[in-house]
This record gives sequence, structure tokens and C-alpha cells, in this order.
Amino acid sequence: MSGEGAAGAWPAGGKNLANFGDRLDRAARDKKSVAVVGIDPTLALMPPALAERAASGPDGLYSALSDFCLGIVLAVADLVPAVKPNLAFFEAFGLPGLSVYQSLCLAAANQGLLVIGDVKRGDIGSTAAAYAAGLLDRPRPEPDRPPGLGGRERLQRDTGALLGPHDALTLNPYLGSDSVQPFLERGCGRGQGFFVLVKTSNPSSAELQDLRLDGGGTVAERAAGLARDWGRDKIGASGLSAVGAVVGATHPAELGRFRELMPDSPFLVPGYGAQGGSAAAAAGAFRADGSGAVVNASRSVIQAWKREGRPDDWRGAARRAVQAMNRDLASALRAAGKGDWL
Amino acid sequence: MSGEGAAGAWPAGGKNLANFGDRLDRAARDKKSVAVVGIDPTLALMPPALAERAASGPDGLYSALSDFCLGIVLAVADLVPAVKPNLAFFEAFGLPGLSVYQSLCLAAANQGLLVIGDVKRGDIGSTAAAYAAGLLDRPRPEPDRPPGLGGRERLQRDTGALLGPHDALTLNPYLGSDSVQPFLERGCGRGQGFFVLVKTSNPSSAELQDLRLDGGGTVAERAAGLARDWGRDKIGASGLSAVGAVVGATHPAELGRFRELMPDSPFLVPGYGAQGGSAAAAAGAFRADGSGAVVNASRSVIQAWKREGRPDDWRGAARRAVQAMNRDLASALRAAGKGDWL
Repeated sequence: MSGEGAAGAWPAGGKNLANFGDRLDRAARDKKSVAVVGIDPTLALMPPALAERAASGPDGLYSALSDFCLGIVLAVADLVPAVKPNLAFFEAFGLPGLSVYQSLCLAAANQGLLVIGDVKRGDIGSTAAAYAAGLLDRPRPEPDRPPGLGGRERLQRDTGALLGPHDALTLNPYLGSDSVQPFLERGCGRGQGFFVLVKTSNPSSAELQDLRLDGGGTVAERAAGLARDWGRDKIGASGLSAVGAVVGATHPAELGRFRELMPDSPFLVPGYGAQGGSAAAAAGAFRADGSGAVVNASRSVIQAWKREGRPDDWRGAARRAVQAMNRDLASALRAAGKGDWL
Repeated sequence: MSGEGAAGAWPAGGKNLANFGDRLDRAARDKKSVAVVGIDPTLALMPPALAERAASGPDGLYSALSDFCLGIVLAVADLVPAVKPNLAFFEAFGLPGLSVYQSLCLAAANQGLLVIGDVKRGDIGSTAAAYAAGLLDRPRPEPDRPPGLGGRERLQRDTGALLGPHDALTLNPYLGSDSVQPFLERGCGRGQGFFVLVKTSNPSSAELQDLRLDGGGTVAERAAGLARDWGRDKIGASGLSAVGAVVGATHPAELGRFRELMPDSPFLVPGYGAQGGSAAAAAGAFRADGSGAVVNASRSVIQAWKREGRPDDWRGAARRAVQAMNRDLASALRAAGKGDWL
């Protein structure tokens, strides 16, 4: 299916680390799930008792935000292949929020989940290299950690100087190849992957992404071509590349077309659930054998306690929401003739 | 010049806070400078003694990075209207780096400098709102701060939960209006501004930004049109909007064309110095009266000690580099008939 760079040709560097496309494929098959839980906390999405504690000051914020995010991770860990925390929501809580981001990534990794850092980075080459270091290197425990530190300080010291660990990141293509290559160079050789924003799920994505080009196609289709090129020599045994694409479930008519344009790219499909995308729409993102895509839901999972009217059982509500999502996606894939393995 | 939304019409909300376009214009005239110093620290750009200390562990990292960044701020504070720290370089140093980012922003604000946070954000509406909170709200000192905390911990507590303070941010337009509006809504009413990435300074910016559209123009020109629309009702007494654009000095032929397309937009012009853009090229970004643009240099200033061979006097070298840049820009603007006020 893939031509050059097919199974076995990569990674070349000696270390037999799996390709991210393979890792994602294996994780989905292990869990029998193609769902990803987006962890995007706000005070409004948290159950009242936690939100109240979070608003009480920095220590309350740190402890409540930790409890909520780690609680969601533990509630869904056996049900999905990956979680996708969006760094923006943690940055909104400042440095305590970023500490929670680290502890969330570590906890998810310890649970065997892939961690997709939704950071949407895109900057000039020298800056991209700086971001790549901060976001792709593995946090290091400090050997000289003094005993007795607690809470926020302890976590910062435990996780060292960097954000993550991340198995994959989202990247913005507006600045072109030299903004992306430093990430690929640093991460792909050790099993990390990337999802390039091709066609996003938000209403105004049309303003630039849908513009028609002189000579045919759209801006988003050209971004798809770039992303495919970037991933061409990074295709694993599963036939999936380490370089994938973000294509929103809110554009069902286009999902199949992007799948044709990017046959080897894993798709990260946002927009399911709160944003209005359906499982039937998302099914178009998958390859004929039902591989090659994961579907993200954020708000519909982490605030499922609201729909159920059970703020006391927000963990259970999140779990039930993911189980329902798994059933919904499996059924839609079967209906599309793609889901017999789910 | 501006039609609707001209001088006096904005801000409407009662509080008489200046428009960011006016604030930038006034700061440039006060300092008689259109230069901005980009603060993008890496170990390789730091003088050896500081780099060594930074590599010695988290406490050394925090103290050396602080000393370097705050030293640059103090060295150039009376020479330029603004500094532009790029958050990526601080994120690369993890949480200690982000603490330094905060202390740098605070120190610059205390010196009367405008702080342009080069964060290049772009995400869907709900996420943009989260970023806007984290990046635009003013860090709050904690009233209950315990005495005796030092270094990293003290700064975190002093600055509260958020990153900044920022007078302006850079934004990526690939996701369109709904990714930008939450920032504008939160910031413009209190004098904050935005620079939308229109045409970036890096070589591969051509891959998407220069694509020609069916019906004429390029993707970057369409981004320019969007940015102008976003800023149309946010034009201050100076005739400059709170919403500006990033247009690289590495594309001299295009600078004048973007200036025509965006007559009311302040331009942030990267690419001068280490990236190869000249002052003569940058002059095309300015309006006929020499207003409306600031030119950024990062590496050529903060590592000027290398060019001078004086690692012991890195502050003085940075200062001399900025003085030379000011002379260079003033001379280029005068040569273009725009710089009599400089």
C-alpha cells in the first residue's frame, strides 16, 4: 500500500522502537476501541464540589484539578487507546495548571495510555526546535530531590524540566515544512507521532482552509498533501505513518475525500459529541479495514455527570459515556463494513 | 483613513483605556525607536559562564536563565518600545523556564516596556477562550503569600496563576475567526493587541501562504483581509488598529503590498538580523508617516557578545546591538522618506 518506506524500512537508527502509526493501531486493537478522551478541564465542567475547591486558592486549584483530571484518566484507562489533553486548558490555570498537565500525562502513560498532546504548535524552524525539546523529551526525575516536598512542588521536581511525556502532538501547518521537520526529526525515531491540522472541526475553519486554489483543490487539501509528504518515509508495518492529520467529524462529506488523499495517515477526528459530529460521519475517516483513525470526544465525556444529573459520580458518568461512545463507533463502523474487529 | 471605527469611537465600554495601536505608536515615539527585542534564550546563545550555571541543575537553570533574560531587559529598556519573548524557548526549559517567562514579563512591564507574547496560538473557539484567559489576564499577587519563600517558588507565588502580563500576542489564523475572536473580546477592551501571522519570515512559509487562489490573490493575502476585518472596529486615535499582522522582513517585495492591503494594521516585522532581512526591506512595512510597524531582532541582539567576542559584557553588547539597529532603521526610514521623527 505504501511504496517507499514500508514495513521494516523504518526506523533505521538501530533502536527497534515501534512506529507511532503501529503503536496507535496496536493500542486500538488491544482496547477494541477507536475512541480518544479529550481532557479539557474548566471550572464549569467540573462537579460543583471540585470546582468550589479549585476556586479556593492555588493549593485548592492544584488539588481539585489533579483529582478531576487523574480521576478521568483512571475512569477510562481500560476503555480507550489514548487520551488527548489540550495544553490550553491547563495553561489557563497558569503554572499550577501546567503541573497538573505533567502529572496527568505521567499518570496516563503509567496506565498504558498513549498521550496525544493537543498543543497545535507552529513556529519558524529555530523556534520549532525549542518547542520540540520541551514537548518531546521525556521528563526526567531529579536524583537530588529533597525529601518531604508535597503537592505541587513535589510533582514539579518529580517530573523535571519538561512538559509531557507525549506520544504524539498536534501541529499547525501554516508555516510549512521547516516548522514541522524539527518535531519529526526529534520524535519519529523514538515512536512519537504527529497530527497535522488539515481540516479543523470549528465553524470558521472554512475561512482559510476551504479556499479554492488556482489549479484546483483547496488549502486544506494542499495541507493534506504536505502532511502526506512529511510522513511518506515514516510508514510502519501496519501501513500507517507516524505523521497523521486532524480532520473534523463536523465535515462528513470531506472525510472520505481526505482519506483518499492520505491513505497512510492516521486521522485524529475531533468534533464528535458536543461539537455535533456523529459516529456515522466519523466512519468515513477510517480505512477499509477499520484502521487508521481515532475519534475524540472531550466535553461530552468529562461533563457526562451533568447529563446524568450525578455530580457525585462524575467518574462513573465519564466511564459510561465512553462505553456508549465505543458502542456507537463500533456500530457505525460495522454499518460501513469496516468494523468487524471492534 | 480608516472609515468606520475611527478615532474616539473605541473603546466604547466607558473605561478610557488606550487602544493597543495607539499604545504601540506612543511607545515608539517616546523611545524614538521602532525596534523590538526578541528574547529567545537557548544555552547556546548564553555566555559560557551563565550556560554552565544553567546546565548545573534546576536551581542553576532558574537563576542563570533569570539573570540572562532580566539582564537583557534592563540593558535595552530605555532604547526600545517593546520586547517579544517567544514562549517556546521558555517552555523548552519546562516549568522553571515558564517561571522565568513570568518574571521577564513582569520586569519588562515594570520598566515601561510593552510585552508582546510570541505564542502563535490558534485553536477552536472554546479552547481559544481558555488560552485567552491564561495569556491575557493579569497575573495576580497572592495576598496570603507566606514570607521567606525564595527563587522559583517565590516568583510563582508573586505572579499568581497566569502567564504574562502581555500587552499583545501573536495568533495563527489557520482556524479562522472563531479561533481569534475570544482573544479580541477579552483583550482589546483593556488595551491589549494582537498580531495575526500573515506572511512569516521562514523559508517554507511559501508552501501554504503563497498559494494562489482561484479568483486571485494568495492565502497570505486572504489572511491579511481577515486580520483587517477583525481589526476594523478597533482603530484608535493614531489610525492604528489593535489588531495587527506579522509580515516578515525576509519578503521585501511583499511588505509594501501587505501595507496597502492593511493600511490600519500595526505590523510586527520579524526576520531582521540573523534571518537576513535588512532595514531597507523592513522600511516597506511602515506607513507614509513612518508609523505603523515595529521590527524585531532576537538572536542578533541577545548573542551580540559573540560577534564582539565579549562574553563578559553581554549586556553592553546587547545594548550596542540595539543602538546600532535603531540607527540602521532610522536611516532606512529617512531614506524612504518616512523617518523624520526618528
